Amino acid sequence: MERENLTMLCDFYELTMANGYFLSGKKDTVSYFDVFFRSIPDKGGFAITAGLQDVVEYIQSLRFTEEDVAYLRGKGLFDEGFLDYLGSFRFTGDIWAIPEGTPVFPNEPILTVRAPAIEAQFIETYVLLALNHQSLIATKANRIVRAAEGRTVLEFGSRRAQGASGAVNGARACYIGGVHGTACTLSDERYGVPARGTMAHSWVQMFDSQYEAFKRYCEIYPHNATLLVDTYNTLRSGIPDAIRAFNEVLRPRGITQCGIRIDSGDMAYLTRKARQMLDEAGWTECKISVSNSLDEYIIKDILAQGAKIDLFGVGERMITAKSEPVFGGVYKVCAVENAAGEIVPKIKVSENVGKITNPHYKKVWRFYGRDTGKAIADYLSVWDERVDDSGDFEIFDPEAVWKRKTVYNFEAKELQVPIFRNGELVYELPGLEEIRSYCAAQVETLWDEVKRFDNPHHYYVDLSQKLWDIKQSMLVQAGKKL
Amino acid sequence: MERENLTMLCDFYELTMANGYFLSGKKDTVSYFDVFFRSIPDKGGFAITAGLQDVVEYIQSLRFTEEDVAYLRGKGLFDEGFLDYLGSFRFTGDIWAIPEGTPVFPNEPILTVRAPAIEAQFIETYVLLALNHQSLIATKANRIVRAAEGRTVLEFGSRRAQGASGAVNGARACYIGGVHGTACTLSDERYGVPARGTMAHSWVQMFDSQYEAFKRYCEIYPHNATLLVDTYNTLRSGIPDAIRAFNEVLRPRGITQCGIRIDSGDMAYLTRKARQMLDEAGWTECKISVSNSLDEYIIKDILAQGAKIDLFGVGERMITAKSEPVFGGVYKVCAVENAAGEIVPKIKVSENVGKITNPHYKKVWRFYGRDTGKAIADYLSVWDERVDDSGDFEIFDPEAVWKRKTVYNFEAKELQVPIFRNGELVYELPGLEEIRSYCAAQVETLWDEVKRFDNPHHYYVDLSQKLWDIKQSMLVQAGKKL
Repeated sequence: MERENLTMLCDFYELTMANGYFLSGKKDTVSYFDVFFRSIPDKGGFAITAGLQDVVEYIQSLRFTEEDVAYLRGKGLFDEGFLDYLGSFRFTGDIWAIPEGTPVFPNEPILTVRAPAIEAQFIETYVLLALNHQSLIATKANRIVRAAEGRTVLEFGSRRAQGASGAVNGARACYIGGVHGTACTLSDERYGVPARGTMAHSWVQMFDSQYEAFKRYCEIYPHNATLLVDTYNTLRSGIPDAIRAFNEVLRPRGITQCGIRIDSGDMAYLTRKARQMLDEAGWTECKISVSNSLDEYIIKDILAQGAKIDLFGVGERMITAKSEPVFGGVYKVCAVENAAGEIVPKIKVSENVGKITNPHYKKVWRFYGRDTGKAIADYLSVWDERVDDSGDFEIFDPEAVWKRKTVYNFEAKELQVPIFRNGELVYELPGLEEIRSYCAAQVETLWDEVKRFDNPHHYYVDLSQKLWDIKQSMLVQAGKKL
Repeated sequence: MERENLTMLCDFYELTMANGYFLSGKKDTVSYFDVFFRSIPDKGGFAITAGLQDVVEYIQSLRFTEEDVAYLRGKGLFDEGFLDYLGSFRFTGDIWAIPEGTPVFPNEPILTVRAPAIEAQFIETYVLLALNHQSLIATKANRIVRAAEGRTVLEFGSRRAQGASGAVNGARACYIGGVHGTACTLSDERYGVPARGTMAHSWVQMFDSQYEAFKRYCEIYPHNATLLVDTYNTLRSGIPDAIRAFNEVLRPRGITQCGIRIDSGDMAYLTRKARQMLDEAGWTECKISVSNSLDEYIIKDILAQGAKIDLFGVGERMITAKSEPVFGGVYKVCAVENAAGEIVPKIKVSENVGKITNPHYKKVWRFYGRDTGKAIADYLSVWDERVDDSGDFEIFDPEAVWKRKTVYNFEAKELQVPIFRNGELVYELPGLEEIRSYCAAQVETLWDEVKRFDNPHHYYVDLSQKLWDIKQSMLVQAGKKL
């Protein structure tokens, strides 16, 4: 399948600025941009980064077609030299990123770009779109999977997704976050997210009786017979008809594995009753699936009420991250290189203090306890600093510098890895299964306190003393200028 | 630009059921399916239907490639005869729909499919996805545009959209709902949504001074100079630097049209101050734009506080419909044809009363007052009924049948129009501008009471006596069977 060319999926201002840099002799000014976010959706303790593979494919397929250039010429805004230049426009810079599936925290660079200004600026919109969307959904899915406490979770939301890529890339992000499969066939074919599914109510309605519909389905799919039992009445006819079909079609063949699905009504009550009826009929291995506007809160609640559920089909509330459907990643310039090749830090001062950026080309470190394997804190340093993790190390809260802490017996790992170097891909994209396993293992490195849904522990992203000093002096300078 | 083939964007159960219909001699049973929704997002008084053009393009490009069939074969679930059949699978049925941009209400068929069961079932996922997504966003955008009371609204949300089509098709839906343009360049190139945009903070930061950045921008775009004034401090340096650049670059050229944009801080306060500063400097025609997490509620609030705003740039809260990011359209079988070609109504009975469907192949009528031009009520009839609008006409509340009302001096219009006939497109797709104007005109046919944001008047969707009688007798029958 060929990838759609999404070069033109850019905010129009990327083009007006690009033309402006072109005409102002600034097009080749080497610039550094960071992608970071400011708050975690659903007041959670951490987010999961995802969408990097999509960014890589975007960067690799970046090119303006003749039609694109003709369309832009028609706007009457752009310089002819610039339009010519667009014909051969490619990304020639460097990109570093935190791998997909990693837990990430506010204000740390998930992805960093170093490139000529015109290129670094241009890719802003799509890079943000891809990372924001997939990180949003992976984060939400991970919450839902954790609420299910080891039970199977399937993604069922395509019909309510916000557009085709919302469904297809969204299902991929759900899989990274830990779901076990999807209803979205294209997400399986394209990305390898295992596709699953059996029947809708219309299957049942298409036959003269529910029993006949169930029996026929069991005959066709004896090894995949999950029957939807709530078309008429779950307890009075749905489960009895299902048991009859299992007895008549599956039992003679020695098949013990089967399933029912309930899509309406009270899940706690119905599943307890269903379990009892199935067990009494000897179908103890029959799995009970439920669907119907589920999310992490409802899943926790009905499990607490003793619901007997093996599989959750989660739709609209996961594929749109309904409780908080926006991941607020931003793309901010943090440095430029001057004519001598020196890296000059840049800062965005804002009247909203929370919108002040961390300046400079940076490195992101995560400190893990050598004994526990648990993540202790993240640490941002200037690019040329190294963290000595052979002994004790003092860190401090960048917003309350008197709060200091000494970490010891720890290992410091750099989180960002090189993705592009001079426009060439230097990163071997991991397979989806590998990303998913990595994500699960990385979430395990977080203390339970950080994973709590309500009022989780604040995980620190500290600044090195050098970075903190640079930031403070830039803020003082900016204050003087005003 | 070639359209991506989205045939495989289906829930996997569409395929297991299709194979089942194929093997059960049910594949050619002529079936009727309705798309309808059950509640209006944000507790609004109406929704706007959108996404039909996308459905048309999907239906027209529906085909399984050899790779698709090979992928499905690999599942080990499907009959070889079925897989062969998929190679020549096309949609051969009929589709009727309410045109894009029409206000619509719960429980009325927005789109109706009549086709062999295997085809009618298969298209479910994508038809719902397209209509749900674009109706959601058009409905939200219409709310935001109405809150802006005639001021310009631009769509700025691509970077926070849920995937590429969330951005591109979402911007199209916003335009149908009434916004005046988008930042999304691809949505302009592909659909003709006017793209607009000027600069980001990084443009300002890329120059040695803000003044220099502004001056250079005015020189390059003297007729499109909207300057972002909040990079350092809006009132102390942003607006003064903008005025200086306007004075030095635009005034000598006799240009009076320009703009500023504010992206942070208190919009009510800052825009009043900004207006005063600009007016005092003689830039009375300078437009003031604001952006920063806007939606209909914030727009209403800051306008009530006397904010001086000409243009709203609305991002994440519109492109994701953040306050309620799901449009719950469903796809339900309502009838099948028997061997004699008679239409047999079908109903879905549910333990949740709100999930009971309206059976039968139906027509959807809207009654307009001949004197006022206003919409009075919608009316669902069986397909072979006609509404005589030459005299008085009694309608009744289907949930409280003693509530009866006589309408008079009214015109009854059928809302659905034929889209496909025997698989051939018979509908001339209107241009986007036409859809947008039609939408605005149709919203004008609603009484203000229906358009209210809080606690709007309930607009009735009534059933004909014949349809009501059929539904009741089917419910009684279903009750007996249980």
